Amino acid sequence: MIEAVLPQASLLKKIIEAVKELVDEANFDFSETGIRLQAMDKSHIALSFLHLRNDGFSEYRCDRSQTLGINLNSFSKILKCAANDDQVQIKATDKAEKLAVSFESSSKDRVSEFNLKLMDIDIDSVDVPEMDYQATVTMSAQEFARIVRDMMTLGDAITIDATKQGVKFSTFGDDGDGSILLKHGKLIDDENNPSATSVEINEPVSHSLALKYLANFAKAAPLSDSVTINLIEDAPVMFEFKISEMGHIRFYLAPQIEDDNE
Amino acid sequence: MIEAVLPQASLLKKIIEAVKELVDEANFDFSETGIRLQAMDKSHIALSFLHLRNDGFSEYRCDRSQTLGINLNSFSKILKCAANDDQVQIKATDKAEKLAVSFESSSKDRVSEFNLKLMDIDIDSVDVPEMDYQATVTMSAQEFARIVRDMMTLGDAITIDATKQGVKFSTFGDDGDGSILLKHGKLIDDENNPSATSVEINEPVSHSLALKYLANFAKAAPLSDSVTINLIEDAPVMFEFKISEMGHIRFYLAPQIEDDNE
Amino acid sequence: MIEAVLPQASLLKKIIEAVKELVDEANFDFSETGIRLQAMDKSHIALSFLHLRNDGFSEYRCDRSQTLGINLNSFSKILKCAANDDQVQIKATDKAEKLAVSFESSSKDRVSEFNLKLMDIDIDSVDVPEMDYQATVTMSAQEFARIVRDMMTLGDAITIDATKQGVKFSTFGDDGDGSILLKHGKLIDDENNPSATSVEINEPVSHSLALKYLANFAKAAPLSDSVTINLIEDAPVMFEFKISEMGHIRFYLAPQIEDDNE
Repeated sequence: MIEAVLPQASLLKKIIEAVKELVDEANFDFSETGIRLQAMDKSHIALSFLHLRNDGFSEYRCDRSQTLGINLNSFSKILKCAANDDQVQIKATDKAEKLAVSFESSSKDRVSEFNLKLMDIDIDSVDVPEMDYQATVTMSAQEFARIVRDMMTLGDAITIDATKQGVKFSTFGDDGDGSILLKHGKLIDDENNPSATSVEINEPVSHSLALKYLANFAKAAPLSDSVTINLIEDAPVMFEFKISEMGHIRFYLAPQIEDDNE
Repeated sequence: MIEAVLPQASLLKKIIEAVKELVDEANFDFSETGIRLQAMDKSHIALSFLHLRNDGFSEYRCDRSQTLGINLNSFSKILKCAANDDQVQIKATDKAEKLAVSFESSSKDRVSEFNLKLMDIDIDSVDVPEMDYQATVTMSAQEFARIVRDMMTLGDAITIDATKQGVKFSTFGDDGDGSILLKHGKLIDDENNPSATSVEINEPVSHSLALKYLANFAKAAPLSDSVTINLIEDAPVMFEFKISEMGHIRFYLAPQIEDDNE
Repeated sequence: MIEAVLPQASLLKKIIEAVKELVDEANFDFSETGIRLQAMDKSHIALSFLHLRNDGFSEYRCDRSQTLGINLNSFSKILKCAANDDQVQIKATDKAEKLAVSFESSSKDRVSEFNLKLMDIDIDSVDVPEMDYQATVTMSAQEFARIVRDMMTLGDAITIDATKQGVKFSTFGDDGDGSILLKHGKLIDDENNPSATSVEINEPVSHSLALKYLANFAKAAPLSDSVTINLIEDAPVMFEFKISEMGHIRFYLAPQIEDDNE
């Protein structure tokens, strides 16, 4: 028996919107301590991890660990039927074939009950070791989404350079080239969520990444005021969006290898 | 000679938007007492009736009864040229080939004059008898439009169950199934138009309806704070949107017959 | 060496948006006194002129006159990467192959640097003599854009009649016909930019113009509160949008010749 309640449906909506950019179907692993999800995109290049701790829910119960295979588009359709400030409850019996999803408006005048078909998904799980990153950039999540969107109009790849001065994003394409530098310690002016850019650095690192994946990661920006970008030589870049006091969503993306002959 | 003036073009815009979802062309019957329109959709399944009383206009004159055949898309195009708070006047001579439509801005600085070609439309009119319905649901028109939109993401049909507890809308599809219950007597929380759900009932009724027609009816939601749904065994369901102190628009839709073999 | 600085990127964005409606590529002529651009649309029917005076820039330097051929879509893509209140600087060395475009946020926390490839564009320049127009209409630019948009739903051409009473725009099409009269001396009610319509007239003039070009000209409406329409018998109509204290953008369009046999 699984039962989990969130006071605001909007949070679950944002989480599923962020994950469904990468994969159509995913296994949600429910355990006593919370919910975990791991998903690799179809081209096996980007990896996403979601972790929601049990204490972040207003109610949480999981009698025994259970994996629920969920079609994220179907789940998203059902969540669209919730008002943002509806309370949302998800519920499944042992060996359930359906996930019960219910919404209740704050005034209790409207109760919605949905059943989402569950599925068996065969996925190998991947272990990603924790690392001592060479550089850690923290910046406004909204600014990150904006830079990715802007750079996509010019090029296919983005280079992230983390130095003591700050973090520089650059791209090039047929129309020209460009770079955007966010200075360390400076506050990004943003009415909604002012957020200082900070670059902690052991050694300068530079990585080139495919913009189309970053555009998917940027869908997680509504979840968090800031994003943390962790870089290290010869390993995937990790993007982490904190989910308010209950967990995080992390994306890993392998850098593009530069062709020496170019 | 016909002449009718409304102080706000926005009202006429909303009325035509609501009617043009069902039919491309319609006959407007002008008489001394007001304007009536009857339209049946192309598949002959849904029927709509519009009634605007003469006293709802700021000026109204109809020397003798006359039927004007109007292409609703053309009329809608012309109405788009009016600002929402322009005064609108429609005018036709006896046996006119054109309807004169004019708009005047409140400051009288802008006067627009349009002529809309009239057409002969051959339509049999249908009589729909007034009935003693078994159940009458009154609810927020905006909430109705939202439920229809949400349910359409899941299924093709909607079942409306009116009971003493309230009204339940349910659907099912490939992704799962769902239902939304609005409780009797409870106020739907809605900043713009708070509206209590009320269910008056002699006998519980349940009808299954094609969602695509309800999506068309929901286009009338901007006309009214609330919608009234009237249900009775073995007869079409009637949806009524009141038009502020001057009439109403009614939609009739035959329930889907359930196949016993399913 | 060319260097020009504007305190608000939004102004340059609006200028490029207005020009790129007519042509894909254009020559910008930089001289000591400012920037000039002349562009003729592909069908050689409409002509646009841009003039930005040097004193309108917060910094302006042009050591020797130089013509830069710019792909307007590429320039527009780069400008989209600027926040509206970023300071924008453009810079080119003599015989440059690239235009350096840089943005700086007001808090100096974000510095963006782009390079736009320049191109050789072979265009014959056209001289348009200054004329003593017979009629000059000044009206709200936003109202002009609205009338053009509204008339396009009905017809392909618009007739502009300037008389002592005011200016009348009219069109006709398959659905019907229509006209909008703006009275001389009356204030167009518009919350954002109230603007009186004024018609100065020596002789009444009437011209019929293709609406699709006017729709392009209307893209310049965000640049200016008002538009001035200059009319004279047997010559192109001139539309002028002033650019706040630093210049203007002018569009010339030849009237349609009316076929007497019609």
